[in-house]
Amino acid sequence: MNTSKRSNCPIACSLDIFGDKWSLLIIRDIHYSNKHRFEEFLQSKEGISTNILTDRLKKLESIAIIIKTKYSSHENRMNYLLTEKGKKIIPIIESMIEWGLENIEGTEI
Amino acid sequence: MNTSKRSNCPIACSLDIFGDKWSLLIIRDIHYSNKHRFEEFLQSKEGISTNILTDRLKKLESIAIIIKTKYSSHENRMNYLLTEKGKKIIPIIESMIEWGLENIEGTEI
Repeated sequence: MNTSKRSNCPIACSLDIFGDKWSLLIIRDIHYSNKHRFEEFLQSKEGISTNILTDRLKKLESIAIIIKTKYSSHENRMNYLLTEKGKKIIPIIESMIEWGLENIEGTEI
Repeated sequence: MNTSKRSNCPIACSLDIFGDKWSLLIIRDIHYSNKHRFEEFLQSKEGISTNILTDRLKKLESIAIIIKTKYSSHENRMNYLLTEKGKKIIPIIESMIEWGLENIEGTEI
């Protein structure tokens, strides 16, 4: 993962982390839809591909926005949860929901 | 420009518009740094390239987030301003500033 910063601007640095079309949707799925497993993220209606999902989960985990835990002692399957740092991204998403609902036709929750 | 929506989710639709590393930096430059001209955006420390800048300005203008006006009657040079719809993106950026300052080492304003 490329961790070099483009500047010391908190907006640019935030975008270095989640400035793409998918990262915040994974955080949305965990927080609002109670999804925690790889297969569950794949089922979301935007249709994320397995390679993009793998990449974004790895990146979000590497910067401690999500944490990976085993969800069953019998299986080697993983649960993805938001860390405290990750939960603090929710207000950004809330502002985005508000803007989207007000300014993009056809959006709904 | 591809205007097809991935879903009717206001988060996904917002990300379809500005879910990239550059769009919100242009809005930042207009709002916080009083930059309005193509050359001024190019000078920002993140080093946007001319082709990405051209693309993002065109996209933001096409969905009425920014508006282009002549800034001199003697020259064919353009000023980019935020529309009302564009100004309403500022709260999203404000949340991002707060999160970045709190969670990314070395960020400052």
